[in-house]
Amino acid sequence: VANQRYKCTVAYDGSKYHGFQLQLNAFTIQEALEKALSKMHKKPMKITGSGRTDAGVHAKGQVFHFDSELKIEPHRWTKALNAILNRDIRILETIKVEPDFHARFDVLKKEYRYFIQTCAIEDPFRHLYAYHVPQTLNLTAMQEATQLFLGEHDFTAFSSLKTTVKEKVRIIHHFEMIPSDHEIMVICEGNGFLYNMVRIMVGTLIDIGQGKKDAKQVQQAFIKKDRNLAGKTAPAHGLVLWKVTYEE
Amino acid sequence: VANQRYKCTVAYDGSKYHGFQLQLNAFTIQEALEKALSKMHKKPMKITGSGRTDAGVHAKGQVFHFDSELKIEPHRWTKALNAILNRDIRILETIKVEPDFHARFDVLKKEYRYFIQTCAIEDPFRHLYAYHVPQTLNLTAMQEATQLFLGEHDFTAFSSLKTTVKEKVRIIHHFEMIPSDHEIMVICEGNGFLYNMVRIMVGTLIDIGQGKKDAKQVQQAFIKKDRNLAGKTAPAHGLVLWKVTYEE
Repeated sequence: VANQRYKCTVAYDGSKYHGFQLQLNAFTIQEALEKALSKMHKKPMKITGSGRTDAGVHAKGQVFHFDSELKIEPHRWTKALNAILNRDIRILETIKVEPDFHARFDVLKKEYRYFIQTCAIEDPFRHLYAYHVPQTLNLTAMQEATQLFLGEHDFTAFSSLKTTVKEKVRIIHHFEMIPSDHEIMVICEGNGFLYNMVRIMVGTLIDIGQGKKDAKQVQQAFIKKDRNLAGKTAPAHGLVLWKVTYEE
Repeated sequence: VANQRYKCTVAYDGSKYHGFQLQLNAFTIQEALEKALSKMHKKPMKITGSGRTDAGVHAKGQVFHFDSELKIEPHRWTKALNAILNRDIRILETIKVEPDFHARFDVLKKEYRYFIQTCAIEDPFRHLYAYHVPQTLNLTAMQEATQLFLGEHDFTAFSSLKTTVKEKVRIIHHFEMIPSDHEIMVICEGNGFLYNMVRIMVGTLIDIGQGKKDAKQVQQAFIKKDRNLAGKTAPAHGLVLWKVTYEE
């Protein structure tokens, strides 16, 4: 029987999972999804995600693909998988794609959002979804600093030392802060992201907002490619993989 | 040493607690608060809440009082307690009150809010905070039905059969539905509420929205004082104790 390839968009509250990617001794989003598909197929099934997300990181629009010989209409896949999955993981859409579509290799751009709670007393309903920074932040300095990250750069200084990929040049299309009464939403879109890259970019912005770093140090970090010149890594729970875009 | 009475306003994500009130074999909000106070006082401490909330029910503005001989300024109480408490419980405000203030007996009115998710696929970030009803609801019928609850009524039919209080007449000042794209927010304000009363009122509204009940049956439920004529009990996790008001 010929296999059909399907592309799924999935949202998840990552609080209770050890990240997206399969791990030996910890429950992950990928494992939950593969278990659900395996149950439907009565055999072990594998999926391919657009990329990993760390433990505690959330997603509004993560994407994965899988191949199946089952003749099921796309919207029925969505329903069937949601009936099996825990309620903190929801398939939002399933569509048929060509057999050469690849959820990781074909990514055109990714959008992440990071949420910072700025109120003096943390909102207990946001404690799993936004990083609480009760100190006053210099928003103007932060807004200005976002410009330093735009365009093509070698992001070695803004990635975890654990990064294994060698090519560290990435393009940031969009990096913006949208402050509201109690929270700052940071939007970051690029053609790809290194390990911990968004969290270090946001952590550096926060350091700038607190007067611990300035624009010159960011420029030096880019030039020297030195992780120690960049800011701290903002915690995982404020981060949401918002959207993954593919070529039409 | 003379005791000072303090009034605290507290917000909590009730997801991981077995309700507000102390229980023998389950961890509750009251126990968490009393433990924090006991730690500060180095002796067992008791608090008095405005009333209980069920397991899974949340609060934006629950109120309790306690007495202490410690000479600590009100805003310092807030900070000190928040430093001890888990992040899903936050003291929002502490003020000094007269020794005859009573968090339960002096309640003038309470406001609850209930959140209903109406999108086809549940938002995984709201699954602990809103009840998912994917079926189409007749909002006009629900809006009209809210009127039937306003004013003074015997709410026997709209309370749990486990209710122990004898006086079941309550006044509802305000009962309103505010629909948005993905959720309906139900606001309910009254001079007091019986056990499960808001959840049964909202459950009845939903039954009406789904065409399972109509206005006449609500009127009959009031007249006959029969729990079976009212609607189902909406689940706890959609409910938030929003505000408790006292006489100035």
